[in-house]
Amino acid sequence: MKLSTIDNGTRDGFLVVVSADHERATSAAGIAATMQEALERWTEVQPQLQELNYALERGAISDVVNFSEAKIMAPLPRSWQWLDGSAFDSHGELMSKVFGIDPPARDRPLMYQGISNQFLGPRDDVPMPSEADGIDFEGEFGVIVDEVPMGVTPEQALAHIRLIVQINDWSLRAIAPIEMKTGFGWVQAKPPCSVAPVAVTPDELGASWRDGRVDLPLLVDWNGKRFGAAGGYPMSFSFPELVAHAARTRTLCAGTIIGSGTVSNENFREVGSSCIAELRGIELLDYGEARTSFMAFGDTVRMEARTASNAPLFGAIEQRVVSAHA
Amino acid sequence: MKLSTIDNGTRDGFLVVVSADHERATSAAGIAATMQEALERWTEVQPQLQELNYALERGAISDVVNFSEAKIMAPLPRSWQWLDGSAFDSHGELMSKVFGIDPPARDRPLMYQGISNQFLGPRDDVPMPSEADGIDFEGEFGVIVDEVPMGVTPEQALAHIRLIVQINDWSLRAIAPIEMKTGFGWVQAKPPCSVAPVAVTPDELGASWRDGRVDLPLLVDWNGKRFGAAGGYPMSFSFPELVAHAARTRTLCAGTIIGSGTVSNENFREVGSSCIAELRGIELLDYGEARTSFMAFGDTVRMEARTASNAPLFGAIEQRVVSAHA
Repeated sequence: MKLSTIDNGTRDGFLVVVSADHERATSAAGIAATMQEALERWTEVQPQLQELNYALERGAISDVVNFSEAKIMAPLPRSWQWLDGSAFDSHGELMSKVFGIDPPARDRPLMYQGISNQFLGPRDDVPMPSEADGIDFEGEFGVIVDEVPMGVTPEQALAHIRLIVQINDWSLRAIAPIEMKTGFGWVQAKPPCSVAPVAVTPDELGASWRDGRVDLPLLVDWNGKRFGAAGGYPMSFSFPELVAHAARTRTLCAGTIIGSGTVSNENFREVGSSCIAELRGIELLDYGEARTSFMAFGDTVRMEARTASNAPLFGAIEQRVVSAHA
Repeated sequence: MKLSTIDNGTRDGFLVVVSADHERATSAAGIAATMQEALERWTEVQPQLQELNYALERGAISDVVNFSEAKIMAPLPRSWQWLDGSAFDSHGELMSKVFGIDPPARDRPLMYQGISNQFLGPRDDVPMPSEADGIDFEGEFGVIVDEVPMGVTPEQALAHIRLIVQINDWSLRAIAPIEMKTGFGWVQAKPPCSVAPVAVTPDELGASWRDGRVDLPLLVDWNGKRFGAAGGYPMSFSFPELVAHAARTRTLCAGTIIGSGTVSNENFREVGSSCIAELRGIELLDYGEARTSFMAFGDTVRMEARTASNAPLFGAIEQRVVSAHA
């Protein structure tokens, strides 16, 4: 099942069910007004949404929206909680070299809490205060859970993963190492993320939902040029493990989003990267200096992961960075 | 003006205006249903709430609640954003000694983003998973803002500080240094905070709202015994500076709560501390070892800051720690 949120002038938009080909959508208003509401009442509404989905696919719904022309918001335009992991070891190792710090310990997941009161839609312009901050994208996968009790095991956590999403976790690299050095994590270095149009139930991935990971490449294009196609499988901790880690001392509220961290593979020289900082890290290793600049105002980034049979899955993030003070 | 939120079985409760002596309260339902709604429409609703407050004080309201017997929630029972500073230098220095790390740089505020989907009420039991996690309280002051544009100056930020609150930022000390070492900040080490009953407009503090700081002692009692009475004035960064810091690369949504970090004074040997970790740090300096244990299940903590003339201000946090798995 595929779900999305369409803008109606409110902060939360309205929930729609989306056809497999992303051509059509229909309002789920009779079932749940918003994505947040659906997640809070998931076990009750899921069968009804599924029914609506079947009806949409077989052409039994008359009130249909042209999805490609709709003003699409993030599937969950704001969330009570966004916890982002960093579960790809090759990313952590490169970043440690860039920051000049020890590589992270691998005995427990890395995770920070980030801004969640706004997630940008997949085609929204991205306002940033200054190019001097080192504007960078970070392609990720994420999961959305319903309420997760404190102290769950990874096995129990798996059942609470209701939706999978594709995220651009915007980062400001000139600020990131300064904040990281404090041990307090990032505030200024992490403005709101962007999210691809469609949130999907795990079954939509078929065999590509593998060991609690998204076993698909994330295609990243910067200014129209392929930048990376790293695969989502080599996570050192699975999504269920990340969820259990997050729930160790807190109940996770319905609608909590948990991110994978930047998708990154050991063979980055072949597949490329999902953020500029990684490429700069590689350049640092190769040439003793970073040669690629971070993003400029007007730059675009496109991110999409398609199914193993090359069908649309989350839809694409296609965005432009602009000056917040223009 | 004093505002509070009373439990009605919903996550957000309902907004009430509270009398100066904390004896009576009356519903603000005709003006704003919830604290979040009031903050989103602050400039519009503030004069109406103020009128209601005057009417309550002069006995012109018939529909009055006995406030001391009401089931009081946190003034904002959940928020879209909680950003906690650490603005008391003497706390940072002691903590660095405890953690065996360099003292924090003082050129910019320290700040992390914490769990905000739940703030416990002032008398709620506090469920914790394990005594082995090193359960500690942290007495703080905090401010609540209406929407703050990205890039404001501290001078501009001051006008967005609409309410002042008193907070217990619960901490798990066995986990804190492990998470801090990653540079990602705290997730497991920071379960939901508790908040004192009443949120007050800055004018309620009179001259004790001084240079954007709360110039009042925070009285902390652990198991009925005075533990600390540190003053809120010696912040190295003021609340307007903390707000401006937070808004450097993001718009702060209405209802964002910004914390001071543990209230701490240089003369801690005289005034005591607002968290156990500080006392343990002092013991480490004095005896080469920490002698005071962290909290046990069943322990209570009470925190209250009163006005300069010893009148009630925020009301008191009075809580008991319990096992989450009992």
